[in-house]
Amino acid sequence: MEFELKAVLKCSSSLSGAASPSEITEFVTYCNADLLKRGAPPGCGAEIAGWNVAEDKIELKIVSDRFVRAHDALLRLKKELGKLLGKHRIGIRGVEIEDYKIALDWEAEEGLKIRKLPFVREIKQEEGRLELLLDVDESMLDKRIPDRLIRLLEDKRDAVRWKGKSEHWELLFESEQRQFHFDKDPTEEMLKRGWLQHAAGRGQYVYGPQITKIFRAFEKILLDELCTPLGYKEMIFPKFVAWDVWKKSGHAKGIYPEAYYVCTPKTRDPEYWEDVMDYFKVTNEVPVDMIMGKIENVGGMCYAQCPPFWVFLQGKIMPDEILPIMVFDRSGTSHRYESGGLHGIERLDEFHRVEILWMGTKQQAIEHSKVLQEKYRHIFNDILDIAWREAWVTPWFMAQEGKAGLAEIKEAGTIDYEAVLPYSGKWLEFQNVSVNGDKYPKGFSVKLQSGEDLWSGCSGVGLERWAAVFLAQKGLDAENWPEKFRSVVGELPEVFRFL
Amino acid sequence: MEFELKAVLKCSSSLSGAASPSEITEFVTYCNADLLKRGAPPGCGAEIAGWNVAEDKIELKIVSDRFVRAHDALLRLKKELGKLLGKHRIGIRGVEIEDYKIALDWEAEEGLKIRKLPFVREIKQEEGRLELLLDVDESMLDKRIPDRLIRLLEDKRDAVRWKGKSEHWELLFESEQRQFHFDKDPTEEMLKRGWLQHAAGRGQYVYGPQITKIFRAFEKILLDELCTPLGYKEMIFPKFVAWDVWKKSGHAKGIYPEAYYVCTPKTRDPEYWEDVMDYFKVTNEVPVDMIMGKIENVGGMCYAQCPPFWVFLQGKIMPDEILPIMVFDRSGTSHRYESGGLHGIERLDEFHRVEILWMGTKQQAIEHSKVLQEKYRHIFNDILDIAWREAWVTPWFMAQEGKAGLAEIKEAGTIDYEAVLPYSGKWLEFQNVSVNGDKYPKGFSVKLQSGEDLWSGCSGVGLERWAAVFLAQKGLDAENWPEKFRSVVGELPEVFRFL
Repeated sequence: MEFELKAVLKCSSSLSGAASPSEITEFVTYCNADLLKRGAPPGCGAEIAGWNVAEDKIELKIVSDRFVRAHDALLRLKKELGKLLGKHRIGIRGVEIEDYKIALDWEAEEGLKIRKLPFVREIKQEEGRLELLLDVDESMLDKRIPDRLIRLLEDKRDAVRWKGKSEHWELLFESEQRQFHFDKDPTEEMLKRGWLQHAAGRGQYVYGPQITKIFRAFEKILLDELCTPLGYKEMIFPKFVAWDVWKKSGHAKGIYPEAYYVCTPKTRDPEYWEDVMDYFKVTNEVPVDMIMGKIENVGGMCYAQCPPFWVFLQGKIMPDEILPIMVFDRSGTSHRYESGGLHGIERLDEFHRVEILWMGTKQQAIEHSKVLQEKYRHIFNDILDIAWREAWVTPWFMAQEGKAGLAEIKEAGTIDYEAVLPYSGKWLEFQNVSVNGDKYPKGFSVKLQSGEDLWSGCSGVGLERWAAVFLAQKGLDAENWPEKFRSVVGELPEVFRFL
Repeated sequence: MEFELKAVLKCSSSLSGAASPSEITEFVTYCNADLLKRGAPPGCGAEIAGWNVAEDKIELKIVSDRFVRAHDALLRLKKELGKLLGKHRIGIRGVEIEDYKIALDWEAEEGLKIRKLPFVREIKQEEGRLELLLDVDESMLDKRIPDRLIRLLEDKRDAVRWKGKSEHWELLFESEQRQFHFDKDPTEEMLKRGWLQHAAGRGQYVYGPQITKIFRAFEKILLDELCTPLGYKEMIFPKFVAWDVWKKSGHAKGIYPEAYYVCTPKTRDPEYWEDVMDYFKVTNEVPVDMIMGKIENVGGMCYAQCPPFWVFLQGKIMPDEILPIMVFDRSGTSHRYESGGLHGIERLDEFHRVEILWMGTKQQAIEHSKVLQEKYRHIFNDILDIAWREAWVTPWFMAQEGKAGLAEIKEAGTIDYEAVLPYSGKWLEFQNVSVNGDKYPKGFSVKLQSGEDLWSGCSGVGLERWAAVFLAQKGLDAENWPEKFRSVVGELPEVFRFL
């Protein structure tokens, strides 16, 4: 890594009268011998390779290796120089970055082209070397933009290397074979029977009384067999997610292609909106382009369900003795911009999920995950009577940031629950159980009194996914459903009839 | 009303050889004597005030009154002329509108300034007269843009006249006085006790286990005392609302200043989003301006809760004997961009509501509304034991389109339920019951086999509003709550504790 930075320090008055040339020369010597070498191995660090004083300006050229990066050297130097000039009652008024070139050792990687980078004016890629010409000002150096750029490049290289590997998948458990009573796509069959209708939006349904009752039966089983006996308490998590939440949860790194974005009006003054209303009234069309100019993006619709919960605990310290804590939320919809084309209820843009969340010490969090797994096995084997399996996979909290592989912390990770759909022969992931390590408590600054790390886990129960699996294997006729499930769901209501 | 239209009809070849000048003259005479007068009172209608044939073009000037508006005259004339020219194997290739001026009698109205209108190049307002110079093409005449513009102006005048009057409000019923046990703002008290925390978004909370249990108790009372005995069945209504729904429900007329807008990615190709991800990774800031260029507005978040239900019935015909139909939805959040400043849970951007919806013949819909009102009185008097009143108000379905006053159909309308908040002395609307006439069935083309009009009604039960009222009057300590409510809510859970 090589850094070459040209900067001009602008001072509050001319330097010719005040600071003598020898004083500046002395300062440069001191920098090159000591100040810009500190913390670096012998022979390494940054160096002032050229300098010039003209009126109230000091022009500098700093070169460096990776040990004291040139922008760090500049900030270090500026501070010391400020002290020196202060004695002459001269202040440093501003820093202009004329040029900043960073060169990295860079082997071309299959499938990776670096065409554009934020705050980079020019990118040159030659054999074994990548050269960036930055477009930055002092405040960007303060924010460590150059370091983050280098980190970004390394991430991009890692991502391409991961891409070669497939997502991690390792079988943990497989249930016995079960009797299937159906070989059709349950969504199509439900559409035929009027149990649901496609809604006006993409990947979205209006659910009629019958399938809603089945969803509520799943929810009751989950509550009676798992949440209540394990001491879970219900909470209500927000369903609009502000960017600040996704910044802390890590979703802001990679959620973009799949998010449902939420925008609010720039003002709620009706006059500001009059032209939009007029346009609609005159054309009967909604002028979405006009609207785009009058709204601003503030976040998105619920995607992963648990991140906005953490605001409840943000910045708080909890006594260890209240652990473990178990809460759940079932207060609204989740939304993902899924790939196009027709899917049934097994892949939706709008879906319904009960989110289960627990936290405790590392040991408690891992232990509790095992208790949950037991409960789920009981539900799937003894009540829903489905054919299913468990697999150890790339953690969802990594996948949603665009990472593959396994968690850095080995005990953290995600178990996917999959079931076969007889009509297609494909396996569908229908829920997960995930130990998320200290990721969320760290991201939202939640601490324990003891100083021990707080860990957490979560498990999302998608009602549509449970239904997709159960109905695909058992069909829509209640007489083929397991007795225990029938006693929970009861009679299916008949409300609508059409000609 | 005066209309003056200059148009040029472009033909497929020169008219000089084919149609003889006398033939065109004859056609103009026929138009002015007959064709453009049809349907108008004697002496009224449109008139060709000037015309000229040059090569393959026919230039026309049409003037008219309100009986046969000039643009209607042009379309009528074009059709007939097409037949005439067809005989000479000449077609009309296109119509260019050079100028279209509309003048209306217009008395200046206090508070109404017409500064800008869609498809209008220039607006002149003189004493008693408003002149519009339109910027339209033929397709806009086909879509009746000029007529809709005139209608819009009339609507604007009506709206200003309505503004003078206040919203309609008429007391129907007032409960006995009750004993109040609290004189503070319950939201502040709940914040102190850690029952809720402000979330990351505007007007949005994360609800802890205690208040969530209170919400669920309200829901259980509503289900046990009202929904179940009256035969309501649960459904799941969509929570993202596509524009198509709000076009049909009428909300697209006026929802804009208060909507939470939803946008989807222009594509879910990760490469398209790479620069946004890079920017975030380098700055730790979400580049919302970059995002705005990569998404498109497709609708909004749930606002009124029942409109997206109607897609379930859209275009369907139902047998009369299945009426009345009663369904409810409690599957997610509602969102409104409320006025700024701090409010408690009584005025939120994100809130939770059980939506109750019924339909039947006109008589059934009105009768059922009365049964509901009885049930609510019982709940508020005998279970919640609150001080409350009922008022007959401007129907919500009109208010949400920006209209004031009362419903056009007298039996349709909205009853607001209001309760006093002892800490402020103000009355808060905490729910409503509304008969919506045939508005929704008409908007979504839902019909009855008998041909009779289908009517509907809805009632929104806001859980936060119930809580705001109940806790403001009764306080947060269970020992002051009515016995019946205490037996439903049970013990409040204690889960979190902070240092």
